[in-house]
Amino acid sequence: SALRNEALSRRQKVLTIDTMNANIKKVEYAVRGPIVQRAVQIEKELKEGVKKPFNEVIKANIGDAHAMGQRPVTFFRQVLALCSYPELLDDDKFPEDTKYRAQRILKACGGSSIGAYTASQGIECVRQDVSRYIERRDGGVPCDPDNIYLTTGASDGIVTMLKLLTAGEGRTRTGVMIPIPQYPLYSAAIAELGAVQLNYYLDEDKCWGLDISELQRSLQAASKHCNPRVLCIINPGNPTGQVQSRERIEDVIRFAAKERLFLMADEVYQDNVYAEGCKFYSFKKVLYEMGPEYFNTVELASFHSTSKCYMGECGMRGGYMEVINMDSEVKAQLTKLVSVRLCPPVPGQALMALVTNSPQPGEPSHAQFLKERTATLGDLAQKAKLTEEILNTVPGIRCNPVQGAMYSFPQITLPERAIREAKEKGQAPDMFYCMKLLEETGICLVPGSGFGQKEGTYHFRMTILPPADKLKILLSKVKEFHQRFTKCYS
Amino acid sequence: SALRNEALSRRQKVLTIDTMNANIKKVEYAVRGPIVQRAVQIEKELKEGVKKPFNEVIKANIGDAHAMGQRPVTFFRQVLALCSYPELLDDDKFPEDTKYRAQRILKACGGSSIGAYTASQGIECVRQDVSRYIERRDGGVPCDPDNIYLTTGASDGIVTMLKLLTAGEGRTRTGVMIPIPQYPLYSAAIAELGAVQLNYYLDEDKCWGLDISELQRSLQAASKHCNPRVLCIINPGNPTGQVQSRERIEDVIRFAAKERLFLMADEVYQDNVYAEGCKFYSFKKVLYEMGPEYFNTVELASFHSTSKCYMGECGMRGGYMEVINMDSEVKAQLTKLVSVRLCPPVPGQALMALVTNSPQPGEPSHAQFLKERTATLGDLAQKAKLTEEILNTVPGIRCNPVQGAMYSFPQITLPERAIREAKEKGQAPDMFYCMKLLEETGICLVPGSGFGQKEGTYHFRMTILPPADKLKILLSKVKEFHQRFTKCYS
Ligand SMILES: Cc1ncc(COP(=O)(O)O)c(C=O)c1O
Ligand SMILES: Cc1ncc(COP(=O)(O)O)c(C=O)c1O
Repeated sequence: SALRNEALSRRQKVLTIDTMNANIKKVEYAVRGPIVQRAVQIEKELKEGVKKPFNEVIKANIGDAHAMGQRPVTFFRQVLALCSYPELLDDDKFPEDTKYRAQRILKACGGSSIGAYTASQGIECVRQDVSRYIERRDGGVPCDPDNIYLTTGASDGIVTMLKLLTAGEGRTRTGVMIPIPQYPLYSAAIAELGAVQLNYYLDEDKCWGLDISELQRSLQAASKHCNPRVLCIINPGNPTGQVQSRERIEDVIRFAAKERLFLMADEVYQDNVYAEGCKFYSFKKVLYEMGPEYFNTVELASFHSTSKCYMGECGMRGGYMEVINMDSEVKAQLTKLVSVRLCPPVPGQALMALVTNSPQPGEPSHAQFLKERTATLGDLAQKAKLTEEILNTVPGIRCNPVQGAMYSFPQITLPERAIREAKEKGQAPDMFYCMKLLEETGICLVPGSGFGQKEGTYHFRMTILPPADKLKILLSKVKEFHQRFTKCYS
Repeated sequence: SALRNEALSRRQKVLTIDTMNANIKKVEYAVRGPIVQRAVQIEKELKEGVKKPFNEVIKANIGDAHAMGQRPVTFFRQVLALCSYPELLDDDKFPEDTKYRAQRILKACGGSSIGAYTASQGIECVRQDVSRYIERRDGGVPCDPDNIYLTTGASDGIVTMLKLLTAGEGRTRTGVMIPIPQYPLYSAAIAELGAVQLNYYLDEDKCWGLDISELQRSLQAASKHCNPRVLCIINPGNPTGQVQSRERIEDVIRFAAKERLFLMADEVYQDNVYAEGCKFYSFKKVLYEMGPEYFNTVELASFHSTSKCYMGECGMRGGYMEVINMDSEVKAQLTKLVSVRLCPPVPGQALMALVTNSPQPGEPSHAQFLKERTATLGDLAQKAKLTEEILNTVPGIRCNPVQGAMYSFPQITLPERAIREAKEKGQAPDMFYCMKLLEETGICLVPGSGFGQKEGTYHFRMTILPPADKLKILLSKVKEFHQRFTKCYS
């Protein structure tokens, strides 16, 4: 019978939850976790005509700019179209500088096609563009294209570096220090690799500042049970939206030098700085300016992406990493390792060339490019402010300034009774809260527990990406909901 | 002094060859190994005016069709251009069916932009296209889009599946059976994951046939020191170019069922079948037709790619895998795992939609599409024949028919003295041979040792991809070289 067949096939499976890779079971990734799956389901239900107290799901769970209505930069897309279909190079619709860029990229591709595999480290002329961009960004600090590895999004680079760094067994296993709250790619990669996650807490009362004594505490607590070798920093911060000061970055570098830690600087939000008085400093630049004692010794990998900033080109999976002071034998191993996957996607590589070698004054696309970039970044800055302001009008919600990146991570006060009810259900209290918010309003946020937070505190993360009018609606709905929720459980 | 600084910084490095991930050190990937690095160097030397006995390097080391002059399919590239720059949807130059396809893909993307992240498993309508393609290909065998995972090239899918399957320690560690010769992604992934590589040898005397008694031998030899759980098949074969018969595939499935092995079928060359009497049978179809005893129980993952067949779109990093009879809890884990990397590149997903939902009779692009595909596959078939024929005219080179895929893997007889000299240099004899070939003729092949071969036999792999006129030159140069080499070392 069918039932017996079913039972038989179940018993005989080679790959089951019990026989699979145990590390993978430990992986968590809240940004696309249960709450998002429920949101997708609700969207389907709405389409099927199921009645809800709302007409649409508003997803503020993920930093996905185009999905939230941000328009792609015209220049980028024109060049990508030319690279995809070079017959368009004869077309008058395309400005000369887009054609020049496309031809330069195509010439660097095997058979002049973006359909050829490239060098595994990335197309050489793209790596040169990247290195010149870094030099300009950092006020002339030299950058060697040989230290640039193009990647499949920043995610790929980050996981690859963590993979290289993971070694040892038991008490000699690599420990990786990550901020809490963190972007959960870090905890996921650490779990998958079987490395040891070492938490250092950002100080919510100091605008999610980074405190060296907290780094010291975290390191000390760890050194008995693993080998702490890596320190990860996300700046500007996800989910916390803070921008580190130059002094704090110096402190971190000094700490890494003293404690012999490999620095990983996640700088994918480097253009996303909004707050007055804040400025993006790259770890590379600060390292360099601290003098040869530091820049000749401290090992650093820095990550960038086409997904964030004003580009928002997440689907292209473009990114790069720069490695500094990497041992040459290790670099050879890294190059070999990336060659197994052949190469990063070429459209993403091309895009990275355009991001780092964008239209210059005098070129036909310059004015429009500048206008689009300025508008996007200006709009984000306004929405950052708006989000902070409105959230802080809600009793029981406390929100730090969104200095940079694309998120706010407010703390929410939850009534005791709600916390109890959540725990009875086996849910994190902020998951309980966000799930109710989703069911009642259609708003999809990610509970703070998905990023980590101080024991006994509760948060949610929301992106500032929805268009301003939608964002306002979203914020007022959150406000209403929070008041209702608080009343209901008090 | 600089020297002292250097020494100091060396001593202090956190990440060194001794402290890095030991599994990565074991990874090898010959397709982009030392011989290819030397070829790139020689190309640079030629550009700088260094005199060589040849004018150009001919790379026959990698299945990179566009780099070897194959033209992209017009239809694909038109749709990709439209997706990249939707303003072109107003342009009369583009046939209606390209616009329809582009609009369908764009509608399925967040914000109608290929710059948005997609579902981690891939865009739903693309997975539907893939599943309908599989159903047509397999004569109506049903395919559930929920079993389709879009990937970043087939490489990504293969590594992901191996990752899921790797568990246990010591004598319970997962053993993975792979063909020898193999495509070295397999050995590389196994090394990186710390799984156990189990070799089964293809029978060169039977046109690289697969012999069940050899599978049995390999399994038996392994079962004492690991837990053999996975059987990988590459069909059509890389590097060996054979196409498995339907009967042989049945045998393999029966073997996997009996021995409780998870089947991984690498079918990226499914359109590349040239030899008369040969036909591609998917493992899925054969499994299905063997009846419920098999299709309800045998676990199978099958892989496809946009890189091979008539497409050759390697740089797009498109691919899919289909999982059959995967335990539902494991599937949930797989979905979670791929979500950490967010999504496969969207241009590659779009391309996969076009490959699996290509122009139909009556649509404006149909005639040209058909013409281009037929020409490419016909050209490859001719070159397969040509390669086999010419190589077999060389005394000391013996070449099986290139029934499918894109490679020939001839056995070469090397003089004793050459073997001795190679070993003195610490080189594999066929590496020694290929290196000399490169230096003397500019031809870049990959030594057989990079794929594995029976002890005491020597081979090289060459692609059949160069344009026919270049391929003829290449083959005659190889012929001359082999004769010279043999004479010189006899
Ligand atoms: C801090 C941070 N790092 C890395 C990434 C990875 O982005 P991608 O892989 O799209 O470049 C993200 C994405 O949200 C991020 O927020
Ligand atoms: C047998 C086989 N499998 C998988 C791949 C991986 O190809 P891709 O990752 O480009 O899809 C290749 C590439 O040559 C191959 O030959």
